[in-house]
Amino acid sequence: MSLIDALNWRYATKKMNGQPVDQAKVDQIVEAARLAPTSSGLQPFRVIVVTNPELKEKITPVAFGQPQIKDASHLLIFAAWDNYTEPRIRSVFSHASVERGMPDNVSDYEIQLTGNLLAKTSHENFEHAARQAYIGFGVALTEAALLQVDATPMEGFNNAELDALLGLSERGLRSVTILALGYRDEANDWLLNLKKVRTPKNQFVIEYN
Amino acid sequence: MSLIDALNWRYATKKMNGQPVDQAKVDQIVEAARLAPTSSGLQPFRVIVVTNPELKEKITPVAFGQPQIKDASHLLIFAAWDNYTEPRIRSVFSHASVERGMPDNVSDYEIQLTGNLLAKTSHENFEHAARQAYIGFGVALTEAALLQVDATPMEGFNNAELDALLGLSERGLRSVTILALGYRDEANDWLLNLKKVRTPKNQFVIEYN
Repeated sequence: MSLIDALNWRYATKKMNGQPVDQAKVDQIVEAARLAPTSSGLQPFRVIVVTNPELKEKITPVAFGQPQIKDASHLLIFAAWDNYTEPRIRSVFSHASVERGMPDNVSDYEIQLTGNLLAKTSHENFEHAARQAYIGFGVALTEAALLQVDATPMEGFNNAELDALLGLSERGLRSVTILALGYRDEANDWLLNLKKVRTPKNQFVIEYN
Repeated sequence: MSLIDALNWRYATKKMNGQPVDQAKVDQIVEAARLAPTSSGLQPFRVIVVTNPELKEKITPVAFGQPQIKDASHLLIFAAWDNYTEPRIRSVFSHASVERGMPDNVSDYEIQLTGNLLAKTSHENFEHAARQAYIGFGVALTEAALLQVDATPMEGFNNAELDALLGLSERGLRSVTILALGYRDEANDWLLNLKKVRTPKNQFVIEYN
């Protein structure tokens, strides 16, 4: 299946049937997010995978009762760094040096990058990190579609409450979005048979030839 | 090629060889961005496709002289709405109603969504729109990799200068990121043969089973 076909097949599943997604497929979807590019390779986000029923029960009211939280077999919670810090940046560059068999020296590039990021507010840095998380989110939902796994992209939850429930601030993370994975309930999903509508190409694209 | 293989094949191409990408492939990459999901289906971003050599010449200093601007055959500039406004939201919902053959009534959902968004600052709304653009950006760069088209994800440019050059504020848009499309110059790209490094899975993923 081409990616275009997969994107036309997918939709924001509103009602799932409870059938669990194979762990091997979930692993591929998470791996796609892990391989996604990010600014300077910092990967300033993490993916929290929730299958625990009690925890999904607790997340349900935080997501305003949306049924996918319980009906999905896996919730992928994307959480961005709450800030860029010198140790976090150093850790990424140090790891890359080791993996590449190079001396772990602090490069001019790293010094400049660190200086630029530390000069910004934590809010600016969090927003930048969140954007990187959304790249991974886009790549992950694409992989789900290619694997014919249904998914619901969800922003409709109380971020602060979810962070508190998962202890994310202690990890320096803030939740930004959720990808609920499962399979569509064909008989009971009101959205399934509505035509997919997108901004027409002649409005979406601006060309300078 | 699987998506995982494609993601391992791709890298942030630093030196392109000048070979142009077929327009049919570019169209598929842009179409992938157009089909990407966004919050409430608002698609609060546009893709500006630049092939014009004079314009690429002018963009080069705005992107601090990075050679991909000229060496890429196509630049995809992702630009997000500068704010959510009632007419913009109305236009999206009205279009969807027409496409679905439904009466174009303003639903309770639309009223609530519009109220929620208009209560936020333009900065908050722009940041939210930018995140949606990054979903499309992630989907587009995935499609490029699947088509074996090289791409450089670029945030390193002066956004305000690029907006002025392209007259984006008159369109209610602000540039957020660029995807430069072309083909790797295998002999002259210093990054090509460096090992791809990512945060190890056991650090990237947090599981609640």
